[in-house]
Amino acid sequence: MTTMKVLRVAVAGLGTVGRESVRLLMARRAELKRRLGIDVRLVAVADRQAAREAKTLGLSPTVACYRDPLDMCRRAQADLFVELLGGLVTARRVALAAIGRGKALVTANKRLLSHSWPELSSAARRSGARLAFEGSVAGGIPVLRALELSFSGDRILGLEGILNGTTNYILSRGEEGVSPAAALREAQELGFAEKDPTLDLSGQDAAQKLSVLAGLVTGGWLKPGSFPVEGIEAVTARDLSFARERLAMAVRLVGSLSFSGPSDSPSVSASVAATLLPLDHPLAAVRRQYNALLVRTASAGDLMFYGQGAGAGPTASAVLADIFVLARDMVGGLPPLTLAARTLSQSSPENSVSGYYLRLEVRDRPGALARIADALGREGVSIAAIHQDRSIAGRSVPVMIATHPAARGRFERARKRILGLPAVFSRHCAMRMLS
Amino acid sequence: MTTMKVLRVAVAGLGTVGRESVRLLMARRAELKRRLGIDVRLVAVADRQAAREAKTLGLSPTVACYRDPLDMCRRAQADLFVELLGGLVTARRVALAAIGRGKALVTANKRLLSHSWPELSSAARRSGARLAFEGSVAGGIPVLRALELSFSGDRILGLEGILNGTTNYILSRGEEGVSPAAALREAQELGFAEKDPTLDLSGQDAAQKLSVLAGLVTGGWLKPGSFPVEGIEAVTARDLSFARERLAMAVRLVGSLSFSGPSDSPSVSASVAATLLPLDHPLAAVRRQYNALLVRTASAGDLMFYGQGAGAGPTASAVLADIFVLARDMVGGLPPLTLAARTLSQSSPENSVSGYYLRLEVRDRPGALARIADALGREGVSIAAIHQDRSIAGRSVPVMIATHPAARGRFERARKRILGLPAVFSRHCAMRMLS
Repeated sequence: MTTMKVLRVAVAGLGTVGRESVRLLMARRAELKRRLGIDVRLVAVADRQAAREAKTLGLSPTVACYRDPLDMCRRAQADLFVELLGGLVTARRVALAAIGRGKALVTANKRLLSHSWPELSSAARRSGARLAFEGSVAGGIPVLRALELSFSGDRILGLEGILNGTTNYILSRGEEGVSPAAALREAQELGFAEKDPTLDLSGQDAAQKLSVLAGLVTGGWLKPGSFPVEGIEAVTARDLSFARERLAMAVRLVGSLSFSGPSDSPSVSASVAATLLPLDHPLAAVRRQYNALLVRTASAGDLMFYGQGAGAGPTASAVLADIFVLARDMVGGLPPLTLAARTLSQSSPENSVSGYYLRLEVRDRPGALARIADALGREGVSIAAIHQDRSIAGRSVPVMIATHPAARGRFERARKRILGLPAVFSRHCAMRMLS
Repeated sequence: MTTMKVLRVAVAGLGTVGRESVRLLMARRAELKRRLGIDVRLVAVADRQAAREAKTLGLSPTVACYRDPLDMCRRAQADLFVELLGGLVTARRVALAAIGRGKALVTANKRLLSHSWPELSSAARRSGARLAFEGSVAGGIPVLRALELSFSGDRILGLEGILNGTTNYILSRGEEGVSPAAALREAQELGFAEKDPTLDLSGQDAAQKLSVLAGLVTGGWLKPGSFPVEGIEAVTARDLSFARERLAMAVRLVGSLSFSGPSDSPSVSASVAATLLPLDHPLAAVRRQYNALLVRTASAGDLMFYGQGAGAGPTASAVLADIFVLARDMVGGLPPLTLAARTLSQSSPENSVSGYYLRLEVRDRPGALARIADALGREGVSIAAIHQDRSIAGRSVPVMIATHPAARGRFERARKRILGLPAVFSRHCAMRMLS
């Protein structure tokens, strides 16, 4: 029989996720005791409104309330700190304070992880602190734990993920005929899109999550800004309907990683981009605010994890799972799974091969189409399908082109050449097509 | 810094999965050492052809070769035994011998687990042995680890799974116009369907996996034979095309669990049955030999895990993950996650409500349809759609009916009443419809 152990937990940040995590922690305490033989005890919370929130949550008076999360992380007698502040500056100081004391840290902050990976992992190595961050990617879907534990005897060849709920909502509602602007408003009303959706629409949010995923798989740092990231700003209703009706494909914002080289010093090819997928591709079936991660492995084949990528409930569920797993590991005195601080080497995407979709706005001039076709031909990019709407004199007309598979570098040079043609407007949409 | 530990592994059974597991173990040994600080060392194998297989696999001469797996499990100086014999009688004795010595056991044997759960879990409790069996359900998809670790702070409300590759291949190829018999032959040629597919087609294989899932979630034993199990034998091409074209639904063999009551003594409603799913249901997109598990949780919402459910590669990947996780736990001296031996209480499915699909073969007689409609009406089951093909004098004609949601008990009584009508043949197909 095991003797009952106590794990003291402190939570920084009582926003929606923080409050839900505290609620779950209290509701599940007896269950955790029964299953783990560990008493997971909340001992401190930090929030500008800590005292008031503590009251609303019905916390015991023995729980210490701090107004300053940094103060809590420096002083509170806890074994495990949960950072749910969001943002970068304070979150970083709070995380480093806890790790510096050798305390375990649970966070759901993808921005912090992607930007401060080397600093956090070095600090954790020095102090022996444990880190867990399941909630930072794909909400309540246990993708990080799977990547960490379940493919240890396998080899991960690559990942393709729908990592942002807002853009997926806009794209999949678009398939139902709803305009991007209206779909964004719906997503905001439903509470999962930010008031300022710039980070979502531009692909930056997905890029931060991709960085965390790359770090977990390889141990190295995929620095934000060091790989190509495009969002869905250029995608219109016309592109979605052309893709579906003429090409039998769906458009999704896909973050992808592909690994090569030896497993102790792999290199990665990374990108985030609006991408056309065949309708029977597993990611094409992911609709609304759902997230999914397709994992390509050497032995287990292709696997997919699917679920709600954000929201207080899913994220709190992931936070609790992190606490549970760290609690087990700590009580057992297991060596922490270490993360390397080195920067991950990247292989050039120049040579990666795929088909491309290109929508151009073209002035109705004799010979315009021929020049476009010629620009593609010069780079050896061959056209698989082309469609031009009936033109109206004096106005521009959209031209949609699907190419056969071509090296990215060649397509990009052709695109540049085409956008330099006098008959072609700069406003356009280019997307990779996966088969 | 951690000191290097050694974990001695013995493998019983060198069939396709056993050989692939041994190959992976050797290929990944250096990587496991680097990541875990543990030297996972193969010390013994057992197989009727052990010596010959050892040579083919290029095993070191220090690896002991046993012809009798029971002999190996009783005598070999190993810390962890892997049972990959399949079958029930010898596998059970081998498993109990290893567990009885307090050794860790990894198995992918769903039949053994579902039939001998109480015996295995009692023995493990007594000796403190650890059990892991990720490969027994859904091949390389890490569903068991997710259920064990990732929803510990959440509450699992229910599961719905496509747990058998052969039947899913037959049903999804059927949607493409391939007959069940031809699809079965394809599946056998592709190597994932058994020569004798009875256990697959009858739903028994899926039922064994459902029993393992129920055990893992609740700790209790869902005894095979104690819950309703139907296969796909009655499903014809006509049903698949009617479902798709008239009802916009797909047919899948679904194993489902739904939990109620307190988490320390839950009761479960379990079933395996061919089921109609709306085309946008996540399980409807699962095609060919793929498996998937939809997990319904209180906080994280609905999640789905998707991948290849069988085959040497996926199963060996799961076996290696089990070894990795048990190795970490053992080195850390963690208390094993215990499994209860008690029998799980079941709630009656009588009152569970859903729509139903019913295909009847009816003799072309005046008033036959009216009597069928009357039988449904008497039980309060109302008809949502009905279709009868043009009849040919003197021959039976198929009648397809979709009902509005009704209690299972009521539908079953109506079905019995209808099959008792003189105009209705006993050959028919009844399926649940999920919304």
